[in-house]
Amino acid sequence: MFGFEISAHCANTAARCGCFHTPHGPVHTPRFMPVGTLATVKGISTDQLARTGAQMVLSNTYHLHLQPGEEIVAAAGGLHGFMGWDGPMLTDSGGFQVFSLGDLNKIDDRGVVFRNPRDGRIIDMTPEHATQIQMALGADVAMAFDQCPPYPATENDVIDACRRTHAWLARCVEAHSRDNQALFGIVQGGCFPHLRRESARAVADFDLPGIAVGGVSVGEPVEEMHRIVRDVTPLLPTHKPRYLMGIGTLREMAVAVANGIDLFDCVLPTRLGRHGTALVGGERWNLRNARFRHDHTPLDPSCPCPTCSGGHTRAYLNHLIRSEELLGLTLLSLHNITHLLRFTTAMSQAIRDGCFSEDFAPWEPDSPAHHTW
Amino acid sequence: MFGFEISAHCANTAARCGCFHTPHGPVHTPRFMPVGTLATVKGISTDQLARTGAQMVLSNTYHLHLQPGEEIVAAAGGLHGFMGWDGPMLTDSGGFQVFSLGDLNKIDDRGVVFRNPRDGRIIDMTPEHATQIQMALGADVAMAFDQCPPYPATENDVIDACRRTHAWLARCVEAHSRDNQALFGIVQGGCFPHLRRESARAVADFDLPGIAVGGVSVGEPVEEMHRIVRDVTPLLPTHKPRYLMGIGTLREMAVAVANGIDLFDCVLPTRLGRHGTALVGGERWNLRNARFRHDHTPLDPSCPCPTCSGGHTRAYLNHLIRSEELLGLTLLSLHNITHLLRFTTAMSQAIRDGCFSEDFAPWEPDSPAHHTW
Ligand SMILES: [Zn+2]
Ligand SMILES: [Zn+2]
Repeated sequence: MFGFEISAHCANTAARCGCFHTPHGPVHTPRFMPVGTLATVKGISTDQLARTGAQMVLSNTYHLHLQPGEEIVAAAGGLHGFMGWDGPMLTDSGGFQVFSLGDLNKIDDRGVVFRNPRDGRIIDMTPEHATQIQMALGADVAMAFDQCPPYPATENDVIDACRRTHAWLARCVEAHSRDNQALFGIVQGGCFPHLRRESARAVADFDLPGIAVGGVSVGEPVEEMHRIVRDVTPLLPTHKPRYLMGIGTLREMAVAVANGIDLFDCVLPTRLGRHGTALVGGERWNLRNARFRHDHTPLDPSCPCPTCSGGHTRAYLNHLIRSEELLGLTLLSLHNITHLLRFTTAMSQAIRDGCFSEDFAPWEPDSPAHHTW
Repeated sequence: MFGFEISAHCANTAARCGCFHTPHGPVHTPRFMPVGTLATVKGISTDQLARTGAQMVLSNTYHLHLQPGEEIVAAAGGLHGFMGWDGPMLTDSGGFQVFSLGDLNKIDDRGVVFRNPRDGRIIDMTPEHATQIQMALGADVAMAFDQCPPYPATENDVIDACRRTHAWLARCVEAHSRDNQALFGIVQGGCFPHLRRESARAVADFDLPGIAVGGVSVGEPVEEMHRIVRDVTPLLPTHKPRYLMGIGTLREMAVAVANGIDLFDCVLPTRLGRHGTALVGGERWNLRNARFRHDHTPLDPSCPCPTCSGGHTRAYLNHLIRSEELLGLTLLSLHNITHLLRFTTAMSQAIRDGCFSEDFAPWEPDSPAHHTW
C-alpha cells in the first residue's frame, strides 16, 4: 500500500523522481507539502488548496490533541473527513511542538509530562500515546514520537536524545496497528556528524515505509543543515521516501533534492502570506510597500495560481493588505504555496529531462536558476 | 442598456419577478446583493462568490475614495478589473457613510465637509464629486449622493434633508455622463409619511433607470420600516427596479418583496460570519457553542453553498471558530450569503409558481415559511 517507485534519477546528483503510494492517492516527488496545523491550511479552503497542486497535506498532532481532541476528529471519519481533504495526509508526532512550545515539566525515558499552555492542564505524552492519537487522527502517514534537541545542545544531551528517539521509535512501531497508515521514523543527532550517521543507521534498521530527517531548521546555520543532509541521506534506504522536516526555502530544497531528499514541509508560505509577503522570482515582496500601489500587473504573470491566473494585481493586493482585508492573506498564501509546489514539480521535471544538475544544482545566489525563480 | 423586464406578478401582493439588464449581465429579481465594501466581500474570493449565486455586488464609494482612491481603481479598468468580478456591480454614493461615520465638520446646500478618520485629512464631498468618484469606480449602477437623516430626527430636519436630497439628485444627474453606468435616485423622508410620499414623487419624476428607498435600517422600529415600504412603493415607477437599502433579514425582505421591492443589500451575512454565526432555518446559530462540538452533520444539509455541499460539519466549524482560524469566517460568510441569495431566488420561484403569497406573505414568526427557512 505504501510503495515508493523511483522513475528517474539525475545523472550528476543524488536527485530522483518518485511516486509514493498512499490510500488517498499518489504523492509525486520531489514535492512540497503545505501545513494545515489545525486541520486547515490557514485561510485556504480545500477547493482552493487543490488548485495549488498540493498532494500530501500536513496536520499537527499536538495542536489537534489540544483542540478539538482526536476523538472528535476520529468521529468525523478522521482528518480527511473532518477537514474535507481527499488527498494524502501526514501528521507530525507532536514531538517538535512538545519540546519547543510546551511548558515542559518532566522528561524521562518513559515520556514527557508538560502543561497545556491553553488551559494549564497537565498532559502526559508517551510514544504510545502519540501513536494512538495519530491512529485516531487517521492520516496516511504518522510520524514517530521523537526527542528533538534544541540548538545548540551538548554532545551528551544529543546522545541522550538519540538514545530516547531510537527507543521511542521501537515503542511507536510496537504501538502502531493501523494497516492503512504508514509510520515514518525520524533521524536525529543534532549537528554531530557521527551521531547523525548513527541515528540514520538505527532508524533505517526499522525498515519502515518512509524516513524523515528531523532536528533541522531549529536555529543551526544553514550550512550545518546542508552538511547534515549530505552526511545522512546516503545512509537512508534508497527505495523509501525521504522527508526533510520543516524546510521550505527554494535554495535549501534544491540542495536537499540534489542529495536525494523527496519531501518537504514548511509553514513559511502561509506565515509570509499573513504578513503581506509574496514569494516572487526568488525574492520576498512586501505587498504593503507603496511601490505596488499603482502596479496593475498580476502578482506574478508566470504563475498559474488562483491569485495570479485570476488576474489579481499587485495594486489590488496592496489595497487589500493596507485595508487589513482577510482576502489579501488568502490570496498571498495561495500564491506562496503554489510557488513552492511549482518549484518542487519543476525540479521533478528537470530530473526527468536530465537538466536538474544544470538548472538547480549547485544553487548559487547568482545562478540562472535563481533568476528563473 | 438598463432595461427592466417584469416576467411574473403575484396575484395577491405587489411582488414581481424581473430582470434588470446591465453591461455586465442580467440581475434577476427579487435578489439579495452581497456587500464588498472595500472591493472585496470580506474573506471571500470572487471564485467563491460566484458559487453563492451572487449576481450584483455592492461596493462602497466613501471607503474606496479613502483607500486606495478612485484613480487607482480607474487605472485598473474600474472596480470590475480591480477586484476581478465580471458580474454586475453597484456603488453606493457614500452619503450614508459620510453622515454616519465621518467626523462631520460642515453641511450646507453645496455639500459636506468632513474629516477622514484614517488620516485627519479634510474631505469636501459634493453631489458632483460623489458622482465623479463613482464614474471613476465604474460600477454598472451609481447611487445619487443623498442626505440620510439620523433616527430620530425632527420633522424640520427631515424636510431639510429631503430638500437637499432632491436638489443634490438634480446635480448628480447633471454631473453624470457615463453611458454604461445607470444612476439611481434615493427616496428619503425619515418616518414622516407625507415626506416619504413627497420624496417618492420627487425622485420618481427624474425618470432614472432605477430607484432606491434609503434612510431605513438607521435605528427605526422595524414596523416603521414596513410602513415606509408600504407607503412609498406604490408611488414608484412600475417598470424600474426598486432597491431597499441596507435590509437583509428574511422577514423584512419577504415583506418588502410583497410590497414590490426588487433588490436588497446588507452587510449582515459577512458580519455574522466573522462573529462565528450562521443563518440556518430562520435562526442564528453561534457555532462556537459547545453543543456543536460533536455534531458531525453538515452545517445545513439542505444548503447548496460551498461550505455545506463541501460537507463541512458543525463540529469542524466549531473547531475552526474556537481556534480562531480564518477559514471558519470564510466558510460561515459563504454560507450566510448563499442563504440570503437562496431566500430571494426562492421568492422569485414562488412568484412564478403562483405560491408567493401562500409561502412568503404574510410572514409570521410561526408561519410554515418560517420553518422552511
Ligand atoms: Zn501566483
Ligand atoms: Zn450552506
